[in-house]
Amino acid sequence: MKLSQSFTKTTKTTPADEVSRSAKFLLRAGYIYKEMAGVYDYLPLGMRTLDKIIQIIREEMNSIGGEELRMTSLQPKAVWEASGRWDDDVMDVWFKTKLNAGGELGLAPTHEEPLTRLMKSYISSYKDLPRYVYQFQTKFRNELRAKSGIMRTREFMMKDLYSFSTDREQHLDFYERCAQTYLKIFDRLGIGDSTFRTFASGGSFSKFSDEFQTLCDAGEDIIYLDREKKIAVNEEVYNDETLKQLGLEADKLEKCKAAEVGNIFTLGYKYTDALDLCYNDEDGKRQKVFMGSYGIGPSRVMGVIAEKLSDDKGLVWPEEIAPYKYYLVGIGETGEQKAAELYAKSPENIIWDDRKTARTGEKFADADLMGIPYRVVVSEKTLADDKVEIKNRRTGETKLLTLNEFISKLS
Amino acid sequence: MKLSQSFTKTTKTTPADEVSRSAKFLLRAGYIYKEMAGVYDYLPLGMRTLDKIIQIIREEMNSIGGEELRMTSLQPKAVWEASGRWDDDVMDVWFKTKLNAGGELGLAPTHEEPLTRLMKSYISSYKDLPRYVYQFQTKFRNELRAKSGIMRTREFMMKDLYSFSTDREQHLDFYERCAQTYLKIFDRLGIGDSTFRTFASGGSFSKFSDEFQTLCDAGEDIIYLDREKKIAVNEEVYNDETLKQLGLEADKLEKCKAAEVGNIFTLGYKYTDALDLCYNDEDGKRQKVFMGSYGIGPSRVMGVIAEKLSDDKGLVWPEEIAPYKYYLVGIGETGEQKAAELYAKSPENIIWDDRKTARTGEKFADADLMGIPYRVVVSEKTLADDKVEIKNRRTGETKLLTLNEFISKLS
Repeated sequence: MKLSQSFTKTTKTTPADEVSRSAKFLLRAGYIYKEMAGVYDYLPLGMRTLDKIIQIIREEMNSIGGEELRMTSLQPKAVWEASGRWDDDVMDVWFKTKLNAGGELGLAPTHEEPLTRLMKSYISSYKDLPRYVYQFQTKFRNELRAKSGIMRTREFMMKDLYSFSTDREQHLDFYERCAQTYLKIFDRLGIGDSTFRTFASGGSFSKFSDEFQTLCDAGEDIIYLDREKKIAVNEEVYNDETLKQLGLEADKLEKCKAAEVGNIFTLGYKYTDALDLCYNDEDGKRQKVFMGSYGIGPSRVMGVIAEKLSDDKGLVWPEEIAPYKYYLVGIGETGEQKAAELYAKSPENIIWDDRKTARTGEKFADADLMGIPYRVVVSEKTLADDKVEIKNRRTGETKLLTLNEFISKLS
Repeated sequence: MKLSQSFTKTTKTTPADEVSRSAKFLLRAGYIYKEMAGVYDYLPLGMRTLDKIIQIIREEMNSIGGEELRMTSLQPKAVWEASGRWDDDVMDVWFKTKLNAGGELGLAPTHEEPLTRLMKSYISSYKDLPRYVYQFQTKFRNELRAKSGIMRTREFMMKDLYSFSTDREQHLDFYERCAQTYLKIFDRLGIGDSTFRTFASGGSFSKFSDEFQTLCDAGEDIIYLDREKKIAVNEEVYNDETLKQLGLEADKLEKCKAAEVGNIFTLGYKYTDALDLCYNDEDGKRQKVFMGSYGIGPSRVMGVIAEKLSDDKGLVWPEEIAPYKYYLVGIGETGEQKAAELYAKSPENIIWDDRKTARTGEKFADADLMGIPYRVVVSEKTLADDKVEIKNRRTGETKLLTLNEFISKLS
């Protein structure tokens, strides 16, 4: 990407109505644009980052047998009435609307009901189970208060997977595999060290659910963490009985603020009962399907990473999800010429700051603000030794590489 | 994809409430699922097809300088009031909703207003122009009647690009480049031969707009086509004056039914006036930005292709957008074993019909229904000569290839 041809610009002005530092930096660096409170557009840099997060999650979901589909936001009333969740008192985050042709519709804040209904067309025998179906889909939630930038919004990207199993045993096998895969995902996203599987409140079909909580001062949750065992307990279920059951000792636990980046939940028969999703077992007996749900919000994760890994100069992206890997600046005429050559070798990996209007200091500040992992400088001075200077955004470490060494990194 | 592990199934039952043959086949083959009238989920096969269409359009938009972003559906009232389009009498396809925190919101059926407002943050000088910004984004339109399956729906995928130029001349340069690129896109999508640039009604800033119309009996438009010149006139502007202006002769024109698959439009100052999007010209004088819009609905295009290219056995996808290229069937134990080996070489390109429960005839019927370009059969008989049998879905032509010839096609 050539900055001179990119429509977004960085800005020094911090939006007055944003509290969270991630939102401030994402807005200032041109990753997002605010339509209204809790509703943000993704500009080219933000979209690339979000899509890289999505792709990592997709690869991991596919690796455990997930099948991807894409459901609609518009939802007819009847399928939600079956479970009792059409009622605003039961589910208070609905956006409802009206059809010109007559009738009420809702904008799906989640998809248990419609997917359970859909699966009735495809599940009839134990041979059709288990099935793991997921999507990346825009969810709408009518939050009373929206804050923390893209960490909690009214319209956001969600990965929601639902499992359909013959019974609890078949369910738990996948549940555990998915929990392990979630840890792998957060590793790949660069927040593995500070993300912990956390026991939280369950439901009718299991005492606990599992949350994945990332230590973060701007988080909305309080967790009690056993660093050695790498597990935590959400404040909501923190009591003597829980600790005893989990074999944890109160004095070994650390009380921390954290942000939820994923959750997995045993749904049991809640929705298959309501919508009558059954299968015939090996003896031809009709049985209810046993369900689970598995969520990660890629846009929320992007916010948490921006919040957690940024410093006073701006964003700091892990390499796997940075919109581009290198931020290239040519200094002087010779430097500019060489920069053009280097850029042409790998435009997909490089932001080339080819702006005539910006001074070098401004370019360096923007490289820091955007959080691109490596800033690469070519100038008459570096070229005298046939080299480029590379600075690591996270560590601040600077080193010289020969042109050939750098070029070999680009391919 | 292994069919034994895929959750969708084909069905012989034709949905009673669907009129269009594309919808019938897409439903029967497991590409889409109907949530309600005019609202369809994309199942794995449908999603893959849709994503391939999207990727072709994306590549071509990037090739003419498009920058991709992703805007929101939720829209505050004020920005649409500025243009007068908040009013349901002016724009009758709104879905409106209410914010729990107070206030009315709309679900964007198009994005001229919010994008024009967004660009106010980034355009201030003639040096910031031209800019071409686009997205693939879910649009909501409260259609009174929804019919023709995914050809006209209430929730659909749209590619909308908007151009921002200094003046009409700069605008027209891009407008024409985009028109040529649209023709290239429809070529790549496999409907180039039957898709024609069509003069349609314009607006305050140009006499005509350009539609791209695909000849199709299920289409909703009537066009008058000059096959030799490869241009057409929409019925809505078909009159002596138009013909004269375009140098067309009535008796050389063919009256045809067609489906609109794209349109480009000169917006002029309509939205930049309403929202005050200006730039300073080279003399420092404040000028209004000149706009254009350029739409293609990938989900609609998918419906038109399904409608147009299907036959009495089912769907027929062009190779570039088929969800998979090969439909592999092993016959007998040796055939099954070899099929497993071939599948493992390229699971991304192959649907392997490894179902134990289906007879060969059923597998062949499903291959036809799904419209996969090549059906590949391996059996003891073909393997006796070290060969596979390949049947072309479109032409029905069958030929034998050696295993090595087929394997070389997979990589």
